[in-house]
Amino acid sequence: MNGAEALVRTLAKAGVDVCFANPGTSEMHFVAALDRVPGVRCVLSLFEGGATGAADGYARMADRPAATLTHLGTGLTNSLANVHNARKAQTPMVNIIGDHATYHLQYESPLKSDVEALARPMSHWLGRADTAAEVGPKAAEAIAAALVEPGQIASLILPADASWNEGGVVGTVPASPPAAIVGEDAIRDTAAALRDGNALVLLGGKALRAAPAEVAAAIAAGTGNRIAAQGRDPRIERGAGRVAVPRLPTMTGPAVEALRGIKTIVLVGSKPPVANFAHPGKPSLFAPEDCRYVTLATGADDMADALYRLADALGIKADGSLRIARADIAPAEGALTLEGIAQSLAALMPDNAILCDEAVTSGRPVFAATRAAAPHDYLSLTGGAIGIGLPLAAGAAVACPDRKVILLQADGSGLYTVQSLWTHASENLDILTIVYANNAYAILRNELKNVGIDNPGTNAIRMLSFDNPAIDWTGIARGFGVPAERVTSMEGFNAALRAGVSQRGPSLIEVAL
Amino acid sequence: MNGAEALVRTLAKAGVDVCFANPGTSEMHFVAALDRVPGVRCVLSLFEGGATGAADGYARMADRPAATLTHLGTGLTNSLANVHNARKAQTPMVNIIGDHATYHLQYESPLKSDVEALARPMSHWLGRADTAAEVGPKAAEAIAAALVEPGQIASLILPADASWNEGGVVGTVPASPPAAIVGEDAIRDTAAALRDGNALVLLGGKALRAAPAEVAAAIAAGTGNRIAAQGRDPRIERGAGRVAVPRLPTMTGPAVEALRGIKTIVLVGSKPPVANFAHPGKPSLFAPEDCRYVTLATGADDMADALYRLADALGIKADGSLRIARADIAPAEGALTLEGIAQSLAALMPDNAILCDEAVTSGRPVFAATRAAAPHDYLSLTGGAIGIGLPLAAGAAVACPDRKVILLQADGSGLYTVQSLWTHASENLDILTIVYANNAYAILRNELKNVGIDNPGTNAIRMLSFDNPAIDWTGIARGFGVPAERVTSMEGFNAALRAGVSQRGPSLIEVAL
Repeated sequence: MNGAEALVRTLAKAGVDVCFANPGTSEMHFVAALDRVPGVRCVLSLFEGGATGAADGYARMADRPAATLTHLGTGLTNSLANVHNARKAQTPMVNIIGDHATYHLQYESPLKSDVEALARPMSHWLGRADTAAEVGPKAAEAIAAALVEPGQIASLILPADASWNEGGVVGTVPASPPAAIVGEDAIRDTAAALRDGNALVLLGGKALRAAPAEVAAAIAAGTGNRIAAQGRDPRIERGAGRVAVPRLPTMTGPAVEALRGIKTIVLVGSKPPVANFAHPGKPSLFAPEDCRYVTLATGADDMADALYRLADALGIKADGSLRIARADIAPAEGALTLEGIAQSLAALMPDNAILCDEAVTSGRPVFAATRAAAPHDYLSLTGGAIGIGLPLAAGAAVACPDRKVILLQADGSGLYTVQSLWTHASENLDILTIVYANNAYAILRNELKNVGIDNPGTNAIRMLSFDNPAIDWTGIARGFGVPAERVTSMEGFNAALRAGVSQRGPSLIEVAL
Repeated sequence: MNGAEALVRTLAKAGVDVCFANPGTSEMHFVAALDRVPGVRCVLSLFEGGATGAADGYARMADRPAATLTHLGTGLTNSLANVHNARKAQTPMVNIIGDHATYHLQYESPLKSDVEALARPMSHWLGRADTAAEVGPKAAEAIAAALVEPGQIASLILPADASWNEGGVVGTVPASPPAAIVGEDAIRDTAAALRDGNALVLLGGKALRAAPAEVAAAIAAGTGNRIAAQGRDPRIERGAGRVAVPRLPTMTGPAVEALRGIKTIVLVGSKPPVANFAHPGKPSLFAPEDCRYVTLATGADDMADALYRLADALGIKADGSLRIARADIAPAEGALTLEGIAQSLAALMPDNAILCDEAVTSGRPVFAATRAAAPHDYLSLTGGAIGIGLPLAAGAAVACPDRKVILLQADGSGLYTVQSLWTHASENLDILTIVYANNAYAILRNELKNVGIDNPGTNAIRMLSFDNPAIDWTGIARGFGVPAERVTSMEGFNAALRAGVSQRGPSLIEVAL
């Protein structure tokens, strides 16, 4: 058994059975090993960011890591923006990065670069297997590192000769230690802070799954305090039959307003709320200066256990009364508006849809509009690196083949990883992509104002628009094999949305804004 | 004057008057400053690799650096594959990387990452301007570093508050020191080696411009030795009226064969020839084990001076007799073949075209076929990181608005930075793109064999093909605003090529292989 086969067998044995790949020469033995080992599905991306973004979407929905396969330092760099997003999402991920044969690294060959140095800033765990015998055990270490709660980025560098040489040994991943149980002092301090009032229970990460969120909502309601989601959340289970957790605004002005008067923020898998960007004269932290942060549990802790114990300490029981009923929502009609799109989505999306949101400014009405819609999962851009939507949807669809994935995609962001449309088509993934086509980096136009630039000139405006020429998303989507349609009215949108959700497979609606 | 304006004025004053940009929030003041400072042209890319690849193409043709503008660590990572190619091309480049405001970096905001750590492996010079007053002087340092012969990557990190605060000072770039003059011993040793025979004069970098190449060719011919280009060359001036310098093969087998019996390799801006990748049982270095390397001049030296002095020492004069006459070439007819495409290109391309070659396997016949075609520049993939073609062509076209750029583009490679087609359209660049559409990573199929995998299975083959569905390049190109046509015969190709070279502006031919 060569090193590559040991690697694939180690992945398969540990249940890491999906690999999102963009291989090159140095990875050919890994690719060949896929045919000798049953049970590992390999999904090709035509750009590396498509692979890592898909691995993120996969793990958010499957609750276990996927592997990625990239080629040398430059394949790795192409993948890193979405590794960054996954890192901020606390997603488990096992990145296999092929490198030159060990004895070839002494030469200045064209593709030589410092793979370790490039991988380190985005990895929680970084390793290299220099011999075939090391590959399996190192891969097992990587998988174990990825599985550390709440999830980590593990990057394993695989030289070509470690891959092709004989002497491979299948690695065994030790059982993950259980999540840490928080101490009594955390329960007691949190209970005291909540009794003190003017508190916000801030949920992040897996605290936003239906069950823990319901306990947290009952605690907040029972103590007369507020609850919120952090606002750039990897996955929220919500909609009819679940509790509704509002999100903190992400823009500084509204967020500061929302937190006015808050004395304590109780952190449950979340962090002190901070602005995406500094703006002249505005604070970096959203909460009042005298706000106190009390950590009930981090993402590494057993957050559900902590919440149940806190509820007990407060004499509160989640009795289902906070679950919201399904609203009777009619699709919007008339002129195409962002609010109308959100309303029609809420009206027409099927049960258990997975909503992937990289709609940036255009998607803002969707979260509120879908509050009492059919139950669904809501996946957001966690790390601010645009270009995750199309890959994220691909990964979610691979993880959940029986659920409809609806992707809300801003046009500017979507173009960064537009090649992922081909993966939607080639894997026949059940994804409906809605592209908000305003032909501009609309968020940057707002940001110009936020940083104090009121009268942008011609050059500035040209840097924030791509309307000359306008992008034809239907042509591009069809070029990648995804059926597409452009709509200019709510009626057109509703018809396309109905068609898109009633059929299986990929499709795309370009919404002409 | 704020820091951003000081930066733009420093660039303009130093003649760095083109900026390929993909800005975000933290770069808004730089963008705004572009409207206050005349003379800096800003070209928008819809993906960061498009910006850095264009800066490479620009500098190869303009012989001076362009600036790039990217957004934080994740915008930077998206740009790095083409920075790598530029680094291997010894291209001067000034990268401006926006970062969070200095006081915001203490917080774990979504987009925070370690910008320095990510930039360092790909940069010869790396700096950060922490205050507005530092921006101009640091930018001047960066430009000076980029200009160090033969060309370097300089990366300047620009925090948002250094950009927006007042107190900016325009920096002054000191005059670059002249290129180093090589010592007499290098001339003497090289002359002796050449007189000894069985030598190869290996040219790289700017030694492949018409004038130094002609002297080198005369020296090789006059001493009965051979001459070659390294094979992954940033820019070769060639065609009718110039000397013809053959390229070393890039695949190990043919390259080893080509160097059999060579006793000495004379390096002129080149490096010992090395394989792209190690292959089991094959050598990393192409030359025989007992081959000696003699350095006449590096890219940092005055190579032309060294060559003239060497010629003098040998009593050789470049008298123009080695310049090749223009061949009378007819376009190919009949079935579409790679050889036919190369022949038709040689027949129909206009004088002084710029050929950008990222055709990988499909383009192999072109170099030989265009040997005696109209004079042209030939730009290659220097660092092996695919996805440079469309950006490189954009940069070359910006640098040379009066010359036709013809891009030979492999389909798989082209998809990595396909968004650059929009820049071709939005800037109305005079680029004819020829896409070799074989719907496969054909080079990897060869590589499977080279690494000893003779019978790839279904999974392996699926990882090397993107024919299900096939990509429709005409739909994608038109979607980005570039007129496109698909051809299936040599007659169709010839007609499309004639049309493409006779009109100005971008167009694309999809060659159905």
